[in-house]
Amino acid sequence: MGATMEQIVNLAKQRGFIFPGSEIYGGLANTWDYGPLGAELKNNVKKAWWKKFVQESPYNVGLDSSILMNPKTWQASGHLTNFNDPMMDCKKCKSRFRADKLIEAQVSEEMLPGPVDGLSFDDMEKVIKDHDVKCPECGEKDFTSIRQFNLMFKTFQGVTETSADEIYLRPETAQGIFVNFKNVQRTMRKKLPFGIAQIGKSFRNEITPGNFTYRTREFEQLELEFFCKPGEEMEWFDFWRTFSRDWLVSLNMKEDNVRLRDHEKEELPHYSNATTDIEYQFPFGWGELSSLSSRTDFDLKRHMEVSGEDMQYIDQESNERYLPYVVEPSIGADRVTLSFLIDAFEEEQIGENDSRHVLRLHPALAPYKAAILPLSKKLKDEAQGVYKELAKHHMVDYDETGSIGKRYRRQDEVGTPFCITYDFDSREDGKVTVRDRDTMEQVRCPISELNDFLNNKLVF
Amino acid sequence: MGATMEQIVNLAKQRGFIFPGSEIYGGLANTWDYGPLGAELKNNVKKAWWKKFVQESPYNVGLDSSILMNPKTWQASGHLTNFNDPMMDCKKCKSRFRADKLIEAQVSEEMLPGPVDGLSFDDMEKVIKDHDVKCPECGEKDFTSIRQFNLMFKTFQGVTETSADEIYLRPETAQGIFVNFKNVQRTMRKKLPFGIAQIGKSFRNEITPGNFTYRTREFEQLELEFFCKPGEEMEWFDFWRTFSRDWLVSLNMKEDNVRLRDHEKEELPHYSNATTDIEYQFPFGWGELSSLSSRTDFDLKRHMEVSGEDMQYIDQESNERYLPYVVEPSIGADRVTLSFLIDAFEEEQIGENDSRHVLRLHPALAPYKAAILPLSKKLKDEAQGVYKELAKHHMVDYDETGSIGKRYRRQDEVGTPFCITYDFDSREDGKVTVRDRDTMEQVRCPISELNDFLNNKLVF
Repeated sequence: MGATMEQIVNLAKQRGFIFPGSEIYGGLANTWDYGPLGAELKNNVKKAWWKKFVQESPYNVGLDSSILMNPKTWQASGHLTNFNDPMMDCKKCKSRFRADKLIEAQVSEEMLPGPVDGLSFDDMEKVIKDHDVKCPECGEKDFTSIRQFNLMFKTFQGVTETSADEIYLRPETAQGIFVNFKNVQRTMRKKLPFGIAQIGKSFRNEITPGNFTYRTREFEQLELEFFCKPGEEMEWFDFWRTFSRDWLVSLNMKEDNVRLRDHEKEELPHYSNATTDIEYQFPFGWGELSSLSSRTDFDLKRHMEVSGEDMQYIDQESNERYLPYVVEPSIGADRVTLSFLIDAFEEEQIGENDSRHVLRLHPALAPYKAAILPLSKKLKDEAQGVYKELAKHHMVDYDETGSIGKRYRRQDEVGTPFCITYDFDSREDGKVTVRDRDTMEQVRCPISELNDFLNNKLVF
Repeated sequence: MGATMEQIVNLAKQRGFIFPGSEIYGGLANTWDYGPLGAELKNNVKKAWWKKFVQESPYNVGLDSSILMNPKTWQASGHLTNFNDPMMDCKKCKSRFRADKLIEAQVSEEMLPGPVDGLSFDDMEKVIKDHDVKCPECGEKDFTSIRQFNLMFKTFQGVTETSADEIYLRPETAQGIFVNFKNVQRTMRKKLPFGIAQIGKSFRNEITPGNFTYRTREFEQLELEFFCKPGEEMEWFDFWRTFSRDWLVSLNMKEDNVRLRDHEKEELPHYSNATTDIEYQFPFGWGELSSLSSRTDFDLKRHMEVSGEDMQYIDQESNERYLPYVVEPSIGADRVTLSFLIDAFEEEQIGENDSRHVLRLHPALAPYKAAILPLSKKLKDEAQGVYKELAKHHMVDYDETGSIGKRYRRQDEVGTPFCITYDFDSREDGKVTVRDRDTMEQVRCPISELNDFLNNKLVF
């Protein structure tokens, strides 16, 4: 049986995965803090991504660029002028809304002059008037005119708050890669095709954050910009489309819960010649994990225009100079972490009158790889010896409280793939009982082989 | 021979460790981007810290809290009222200065009524007048009065820029830990003493960032808050003082370049009963990597007062309720990464007329653990086979360009501990030549044993 959001939010809070941010102060607008187990889970997701997209890739290298960037970056990328939501207020109750969302909710598609995204502010105001759009709060139909609201977080660097010192928190990690394209290519002596990957925080002043960690103003991205020769981009687009989906499935995500949604031509952003959303079936509906897109040379060209720096690649074999095309197979770190958590959760019936909560996380993602349980407190020293030895290689837990059955259930619920019980026989035969989270089967294993046993289970 | 800052900045830029931030736009006030090798190095530093301070620790657990926090957090911590620099302007040339720094530079200590940090604004203005302090830019002695300048970056969340929506980028990761103290303690069923660790970005609007990545407005912290019973804090202070220093030295930092500077009673911040700076000998002088401090119950008490939430720990053995004391052995991630880079750098004379640049990084910190070099391009397929197999387990490089000697030097300069050469004999005997970065000695090693060989070298 699949999980409800309520079950996931509860589990996350009660078992140390995800807490409401600044909770003792009543929170702060859908911010969330990863607790001890959530921090491990998310770190494991990031490591698993880096392993497949950087470490094992013959093409890609990493980067870690600043959150604070020169504002000309956002002029070039278009975020200063285009990264806006259309806002308006109800004159009566002063509630504030996104005009496009209000239209979507109250006017059927056929009645519109075109897709909502494409409407001008004037068009939208006309639609609102003609179709009697109402304030969802008070029911009135009297709105202010529509204004642009830029989604970038603004701040000031230096000692004054003048426009000269205005800077922005990056709304995406991609631009940190683009501005460094030449630095990376030159210092790493890279030939096309190659990619630059980075993991980092971005910030968007979303009007309506929500759905737990799915839409938050502060979020982390697993970003890859892959540079190739123009004309070869569709081949690489297909490569990374398959590669990204396979990465999810190789980490135990259920195939039925993942779908690829190719955008129609009309849906494509102006800079893209192909886009596929990789979506996960959340309890609240299908939601985007990745918007894999072929971005042509839009970004590099804009940075070349605005900076005056030559961003072209010199092809030493053909002696050509050109701007590479870019494929962007990026994934939302918080979203994919949440989807792994949801996907792994199961309330399992055991026998007639018993059930358990179990997180069937891939061992590579599980916060603890194993828990070491002494059968009796008299075996504490020996069990802690096993724990300490394993802790040199793996994140493992040690738990001596409660019956073995209770301890098993506690570990099942946080996704620990193996429980290792040290009993009185262990003293004699140097073996422990290893219990599998998923099958609940138990085998005896020599203590000396535990590390290799775990290493083998972590492969993906 | 030790490194100069110029050598380090050059190496960092030319070999893909650290680039100026937003460089194509002329940079942005001492921001820096970690290039492919710098991103690996810094990640390895973070992993090495997490391994020793979290994974292997029987006491500590991790956390990953938001950068954006409820502003009441900063009211409680004192950052809203106390986290200020005293600023003033020259009326003639309009240059802006920190009053305390100007006094330090132009007035000898004996002439002051007390330590500069302790002077009120009125005191400072009097000193500036009485001792003829001059503008270092134009020489005039006519200044505006001193104003407080808060070092927190301010931004706005939501759609308006009113004070109601004013929030701050966290100036330290510590408070994210304190506000979650009860959540973590409860969900992880932790008993004192225990610690909560987190790695993350913080932001301070420093007036004078500088010294490469040593002082930047955006920086990353390796933060640990260790909670213990009041009265036991000095014991734990000593424990973490030694533990932190040993961590640095276990990763090859030269003992002569590290010193512990215990603060005098008068130097201590109001909330601390003991502080030790762990300093590294940078080319520009001794600089702080860590300011290890015993913070008493200052933070938890303040959060309890401001939030009204009970932050006390319930000691189940003694049935007491009390606020734990806190020891904070935190380290600057960018600073310690820079110090490892500087410490490892050597310009080594080889024989009479030759020299090489070598980064003697601990293998656990080195960006590449090994480089696989085919002796001839005819051996490409086989050498790539070795590369692909090792890449499943380690970050490794593959390099087929230039003479073997040149390739060795290139790898020496970026700290790759082992060069693995695949030659024509390798086809026959299944062995490769492994060359050690530090000794330059070469041994033959079976390909099947390479992974174990590297694993053994990574232990620290």
